[in-house]
Amino acid sequence: MGKGGMSHGNVGEGTHDARIRMKAVGICGSDVHFLKEMKLADFVVTEPMVIGHECAGIIEEVGTEVKHLVPGDRVAVEPGISCWRCDLCKDGRYNLCPEMKFLLLPLFMIVHPADLCFKLPDNVSLEEGAMCEPLSVGVHACRRANVGPETNVLVMGAGPIGLVTMLVARAFGSPRIVIVDVDDHRLSVAKELGADETVKVSTSINDVAAEIERIKEAMGAVVDISFDCAGFSKTMSTALGATSSGGKVCLVGLGHTEMTLPLAPAAVREVDVVGIFRYKNTWPLCLEFLRSGKIDVKPLITHRFGFSQKEVEDAFETSARGGNAIKVMFNL
Amino acid sequence: MGKGGMSHGNVGEGTHDARIRMKAVGICGSDVHFLKEMKLADFVVTEPMVIGHECAGIIEEVGTEVKHLVPGDRVAVEPGISCWRCDLCKDGRYNLCPEMKFLLLPLFMIVHPADLCFKLPDNVSLEEGAMCEPLSVGVHACRRANVGPETNVLVMGAGPIGLVTMLVARAFGSPRIVIVDVDDHRLSVAKELGADETVKVSTSINDVAAEIERIKEAMGAVVDISFDCAGFSKTMSTALGATSSGGKVCLVGLGHTEMTLPLAPAAVREVDVVGIFRYKNTWPLCLEFLRSGKIDVKPLITHRFGFSQKEVEDAFETSARGGNAIKVMFNL
Amino acid sequence: MGKGGMSHGNVGEGTHDARIRMKAVGICGSDVHFLKEMKLADFVVTEPMVIGHECAGIIEEVGTEVKHLVPGDRVAVEPGISCWRCDLCKDGRYNLCPEMKFLLLPLFMIVHPADLCFKLPDNVSLEEGAMCEPLSVGVHACRRANVGPETNVLVMGAGPIGLVTMLVARAFGSPRIVIVDVDDHRLSVAKELGADETVKVSTSINDVAAEIERIKEAMGAVVDISFDCAGFSKTMSTALGATSSGGKVCLVGLGHTEMTLPLAPAAVREVDVVGIFRYKNTWPLCLEFLRSGKIDVKPLITHRFGFSQKEVEDAFETSARGGNAIKVMFNL
Amino acid sequence: MGKGGMSHGNVGEGTHDARIRMKAVGICGSDVHFLKEMKLADFVVTEPMVIGHECAGIIEEVGTEVKHLVPGDRVAVEPGISCWRCDLCKDGRYNLCPEMKFLLLPLFMIVHPADLCFKLPDNVSLEEGAMCEPLSVGVHACRRANVGPETNVLVMGAGPIGLVTMLVARAFGSPRIVIVDVDDHRLSVAKELGADETVKVSTSINDVAAEIERIKEAMGAVVDISFDCAGFSKTMSTALGATSSGGKVCLVGLGHTEMTLPLAPAAVREVDVVGIFRYKNTWPLCLEFLRSGKIDVKPLITHRFGFSQKEVEDAFETSARGGNAIKVMFNL
Repeated sequence: MGKGGMSHGNVGEGTHDARIRMKAVGICGSDVHFLKEMKLADFVVTEPMVIGHECAGIIEEVGTEVKHLVPGDRVAVEPGISCWRCDLCKDGRYNLCPEMKFLLLPLFMIVHPADLCFKLPDNVSLEEGAMCEPLSVGVHACRRANVGPETNVLVMGAGPIGLVTMLVARAFGSPRIVIVDVDDHRLSVAKELGADETVKVSTSINDVAAEIERIKEAMGAVVDISFDCAGFSKTMSTALGATSSGGKVCLVGLGHTEMTLPLAPAAVREVDVVGIFRYKNTWPLCLEFLRSGKIDVKPLITHRFGFSQKEVEDAFETSARGGNAIKVMFNL
Repeated sequence: MGKGGMSHGNVGEGTHDARIRMKAVGICGSDVHFLKEMKLADFVVTEPMVIGHECAGIIEEVGTEVKHLVPGDRVAVEPGISCWRCDLCKDGRYNLCPEMKFLLLPLFMIVHPADLCFKLPDNVSLEEGAMCEPLSVGVHACRRANVGPETNVLVMGAGPIGLVTMLVARAFGSPRIVIVDVDDHRLSVAKELGADETVKVSTSINDVAAEIERIKEAMGAVVDISFDCAGFSKTMSTALGATSSGGKVCLVGLGHTEMTLPLAPAAVREVDVVGIFRYKNTWPLCLEFLRSGKIDVKPLITHRFGFSQKEVEDAFETSARGGNAIKVMFNL
Repeated sequence: MGKGGMSHGNVGEGTHDARIRMKAVGICGSDVHFLKEMKLADFVVTEPMVIGHECAGIIEEVGTEVKHLVPGDRVAVEPGISCWRCDLCKDGRYNLCPEMKFLLLPLFMIVHPADLCFKLPDNVSLEEGAMCEPLSVGVHACRRANVGPETNVLVMGAGPIGLVTMLVARAFGSPRIVIVDVDDHRLSVAKELGADETVKVSTSINDVAAEIERIKEAMGAVVDISFDCAGFSKTMSTALGATSSGGKVCLVGLGHTEMTLPLAPAAVREVDVVGIFRYKNTWPLCLEFLRSGKIDVKPLITHRFGFSQKEVEDAFETSARGGNAIKVMFNL
Repeated sequence: MGKGGMSHGNVGEGTHDARIRMKAVGICGSDVHFLKEMKLADFVVTEPMVIGHECAGIIEEVGTEVKHLVPGDRVAVEPGISCWRCDLCKDGRYNLCPEMKFLLLPLFMIVHPADLCFKLPDNVSLEEGAMCEPLSVGVHACRRANVGPETNVLVMGAGPIGLVTMLVARAFGSPRIVIVDVDDHRLSVAKELGADETVKVSTSINDVAAEIERIKEAMGAVVDISFDCAGFSKTMSTALGATSSGGKVCLVGLGHTEMTLPLAPAAVREVDVVGIFRYKNTWPLCLEFLRSGKIDVKPLITHRFGFSQKEVEDAFETSARGGNAIKVMFNL
């Protein structure tokens, strides 16, 4: 490694890089189940379902300017590398950087900026470290929606993203969380993981008004913030109607590209709609939540596989099947 | 007036009230024209079109506790009376108060809380004072969307509300404003009133993508904030697509109750949607804008009528006809 | 009670009022101890030390328009009545209302606006209800300083206000809290109540630099937010120096009216100073914290007295003496 | 230029760099005059007085990845290069980066990151471009204090930084600006440059109370935001006392490191104190203000020098002497 740098691709000079041997890589158990139930024709595979950006590993080597890591450190890896030259980066919204390079298939060994490698606390496993990525989606959503000890939260969709959003909303102090899904099993998992109440809904758009009433009843108070972790016309319509005046709806799931929505009635109640794209500056908080035990992600890791070809196929099959799979993890 | 109060309805004790002789009352030249062009079947008459909440007059009498007004003062009147007991009022969002009582048909004489009567600067006429109400919609929208000297603004719809929003955005310092409409006359009015560029659009949803390109070209820079002052699926789709990553779309117009929108692609660029309901704490700022000349509303007052039955009928006919009517004003 | 109102002083029409029989009234164990240690000549008795604004009782009667309370309800009482006519009230900062009327000596029976009476959850006692007032100071401070799960907190002063601020910061999710005092006993109480670390300091201004180092070491991370709950030149200098770049110092205690401070070095690190005055919209959150057990105020109530003359004298003596008294409560 | 980069020091790979021939470099006419008047013993030369960070020039060469600049372009240069790896950078507060490298003595020719080189609009001269640096201080201060069309502004100190802060506050829409100084000439310059009112004050701390009254009278309305562009105990005490409840004081000048201040009375009125360090993301807005004519900095450039040794000495002598020098500019 000449002059303090490392031989690698296009991720900078090298003096600020690290080489990491990957040990745990997750894939989404995804929203396939929910999608099937909703019988949606126009489903598109959305970003969060790509493999490899949920990963943790062990440092093999670091550039000469890296001070916070040494070989042997276990780290969770933030996958996106932004340009730090555009207006959005400079304004602290680096997740929206149009030049973002995103880590794909980080198997075995990668070279990555060391400032995107976060040392795991002693009591956090590599698998849990890999879970920082989906947790980050929940953290970014809760920050954008401003969740806190005064905000009751509704979560539409009890898939993996709905579950992490629920866990993070709780860790942000939300006093009351109601979660909604079409599937009994998912709702029972959500209840075990800490939802105050669950509401089972149908896939029919005609039931929106009645379901809003049932949600309000289950909340027993105003809904300050709703997270739509499914992202369909129906779930978003429900969220808009259930959220109280002056509240927020955060669109997290991406089921429908185009939605038909009663937007005007929400707008005149100043129910705002905020979207999210990935996350920024979330790894340290996720690790703190895991370290302190405010969030326990271990129950979300339902399946583990090695990395033979057979096991990889099984893993994807398991993940795609949905069923009781939440998070499928490769151990390398 | 016994014991310092005044005999009146249910607007408080009386010691803090004022009696006002109405002198100028406006009605909206409205978005009828735009609506016709869009050939929309499901149009509903929306709040901003009711008569009488745009008014100014002369103080006749004040309660004993009123210190800032004396008989003879010319005042602009904020029409809504909120409860100041609910959570929203106490949190400073009194426009969302569920107990709001709204002034209707304030003709000739009204009794109203004195703190909602704002003395006109010497160089502001009663007619201009009445214009504080529509201006307030623009002020509240620009505040919610956070318009300032760094935000380029797109305005969809060059009707009265689109025009006041444009004027207020300019007064908030917006460096570049593009306004869009289906009608050449309205666009020429907007240009005269200060729009940097205008873009004529069709009523066909199929033209959205092309029109977004034309809007971006007319802006010559990123669109930071869009105001949809029409409120149709098409205008909102255009606004969502034209607004740059991390920007905001403020829904002001209420053309469509239900909209079909490409919401997900906007959400993943963190283009947020904020709604507005009326206004709060806007009258002092509107009067300052009028006093300083930062906003000139006189060109918006296109028609004036007295208050005989014949003239009232003519006035409504004029207003409903649209055409070149922007704001129709009664002088009492 | 004629026409739905109640005979009372000047707190409105009566139809929205409630009559409350006081049952629990607290007085501050105060910062007397700390003050003595600091041997400060210019101490002035500050607002938070007046009796009677910390109270809870039982509803005897309500006006006809009061819907959320019935006789027999146990309630905590927010003491300040603001005007709702000034700019600050209308802007949601009613705590700064220049016309604020503040409840004094609310013994035995008071008539008060019903919207300032908050029903106690079943598992919250009247004594705990009275504690909403000091808790509210902590809540308002934590809100203004924006405490959350990402902010490490330093608390200067382990008196009653320092302790409630610490409890509230924890309830707002602060991951790490260091508390500082001159007194071992107070620090041991703080540790029992949940401080992560305590730092004993001197009263000498010469020790500031060394104590800042010890505080940083105790925090083991950056100090994002400091609360100065003492309010002396020394405590504030320490807070300014200990807080990391871009952080906040919230001045809560009012030991010194005039302070000598290294303000410029803090300003160029963009360490902002925010003050607080009382609280606003805090009772519901305090009651939720008490209901859920996120905050337990019972250990703070160290002394209880009846209301004979002898007992009142003993109570004040106990409170003024400081020592191990935190909160002294009258049971009526 | 091999492989798309440029030979230079330690400012990155080179492919994203630019080489600029400096043409205009400013030095501060500084606060020397004010300082002398205040007869302050503990004056320290503060950051903003170093030469060379106010500069503009012409692009000679750009790295292969630079798309927005070509040789011959005239550019204003943002001098600080931050690390983009620390928490503060990633959170958008790059001005607070502890690893910031700051351009010193950029005479004749420099190599600099191209994203910190901002192309001048055709109607903005190189000298005006160099003025973006002091303007940036005003922009950052006005942003942090949240100046807008609803905030009356008090500026303490009519030196170069006070003047640019005043100009920027106006450009941000402030409806009324009062400026204060000890010197008649400086106040008359401020008046010519657009101050609504000026107030001449003494250097005696005993006059604070009386001068606050005169300032309030000159404002004729509440003071929402004060900028202390001098930074002495007296100026800051005046600012704290003059600012209305719920307002802000922004500390810009750095006259005194340690101040003696009535901080508690300001804190209980929730008058917050915010500091600033340099600026971030300000160049584009400054250039827009110059392009549009919202700010005219030409009257601030009072002296111009070439770059012979004799002229350099004269320039510094002129700048240090104060007198009627505001900004001294070298033309290279």
